Amino acid sequence: MPLKEDASIEITAFRWVPEFAQGVVRDLRARWALEEAGLDYRVRLLGMPRPPEYLKEQPFDQVPCFNDGKVRIFESGAIIQYIGEQSEVLLPRDPQGKYRAIQWTYAALNSVEPAILNLLLIDVFYKGEEWATLRRPGAEEFARLKLKRLSDWLGDKEWLEDRFTIGDLMMTTTLRFLRHTNLVGEIPNLAAYLQRAESRPAFKQALNDQLAAFAANEPQLEGAAA
Amino acid sequence: MPLKEDASIEITAFRWVPEFAQGVVRDLRARWALEEAGLDYRVRLLGMPRPPEYLKEQPFDQVPCFNDGKVRIFESGAIIQYIGEQSEVLLPRDPQGKYRAIQWTYAALNSVEPAILNLLLIDVFYKGEEWATLRRPGAEEFARLKLKRLSDWLGDKEWLEDRFTIGDLMMTTTLRFLRHTNLVGEIPNLAAYLQRAESRPAFKQALNDQLAAFAANEPQLEGAAA
Repeated sequence: MPLKEDASIEITAFRWVPEFAQGVVRDLRARWALEEAGLDYRVRLLGMPRPPEYLKEQPFDQVPCFNDGKVRIFESGAIIQYIGEQSEVLLPRDPQGKYRAIQWTYAALNSVEPAILNLLLIDVFYKGEEWATLRRPGAEEFARLKLKRLSDWLGDKEWLEDRFTIGDLMMTTTLRFLRHTNLVGEIPNLAAYLQRAESRPAFKQALNDQLAAFAANEPQLEGAAA
Repeated sequence: MPLKEDASIEITAFRWVPEFAQGVVRDLRARWALEEAGLDYRVRLLGMPRPPEYLKEQPFDQVPCFNDGKVRIFESGAIIQYIGEQSEVLLPRDPQGKYRAIQWTYAALNSVEPAILNLLLIDVFYKGEEWATLRRPGAEEFARLKLKRLSDWLGDKEWLEDRFTIGDLMMTTTLRFLRHTNLVGEIPNLAAYLQRAESRPAFKQALNDQLAAFAANEPQLEGAAA
């Protein structure tokens, strides 16, 4: 279990988030990559709202940030790629294998996530707004198209390329944003792909550690100790 | 001018696109990076609709794909990073400088582009639909927030970090998706940043070459030669 108070690697995460976000906040990606790589890390928990000076570290006010004393970066894609460079479990060493994995990391974040996250926002943040009700069928259709493209590519393969990489880590954490629907469940090879990823011990540990922090920092009832 | 018919690097691009997309299709990013790096390349132009077998190269049916005989990848982010590894003009060599640049490439694609592209889709693809009219003010507000975050980070710096990198290439091509509005123009440091990028000879050459292909393949009136 690489979670250690005196580790040289630090990531940021939220102290607590509402239930719909628990288990999908993006520090999960960094935690998972660190577990796969067997690298110790510690977590700096941020309250809501974040302290204003956090924008100097993370201009978009998001988590995670990463700092290992050598490199200080934000964006989960860059972070898991950097961790991947330190572990062949995550990133092949040959140029083609390496860049196929990086390509899928970008594909998850730019060609798949926007359609998926749009549906989550419509269903959770904007639920009940007139535009959201009107837009939902088209937004679901667009998300389904992305899933079909991904499913067609995957076929009967175990992973997106010939082995597990950061591309699968990123793609499967992206698919988890649809867990409030059955869109992934309706596509057998994608459902099995997601389950395969979530069965990895490193994923389970990462998820467990993210959820444990939220459980430990559950907001108290008004009047109780802060 | 690195556009050469017998070059070993090949990228894919569209034969022709409607005017609103001319000058922002994503092969522009690859062309620009190749020009900055001084690498010769050739272009494989694809008609609309794309041939069905293109999905085996690019599962999401987009451009560009990249192939240099050693590495065959898609996703503009992965492509400009791969080109960046071959030219210090695009990507610093020290780990911190390199990963700050990569971080901004991801930030452009995941933390900025979705908000910006959403507004472009509302204004162009979905124009006149009821949900789009209702959603537009909120979508513009969200895009403005992203631009403000970016502007605050940039301050009076010339580039996102201490020199031009692939991060600036990706961020400024992303800002160009707002050219049908004045949202960037209203923020002096962002407007100057975009202009600084667009003034680079490599950008101008890349844009010129993308537009030249569209001009050469303008659809003929019905009945004229195909």
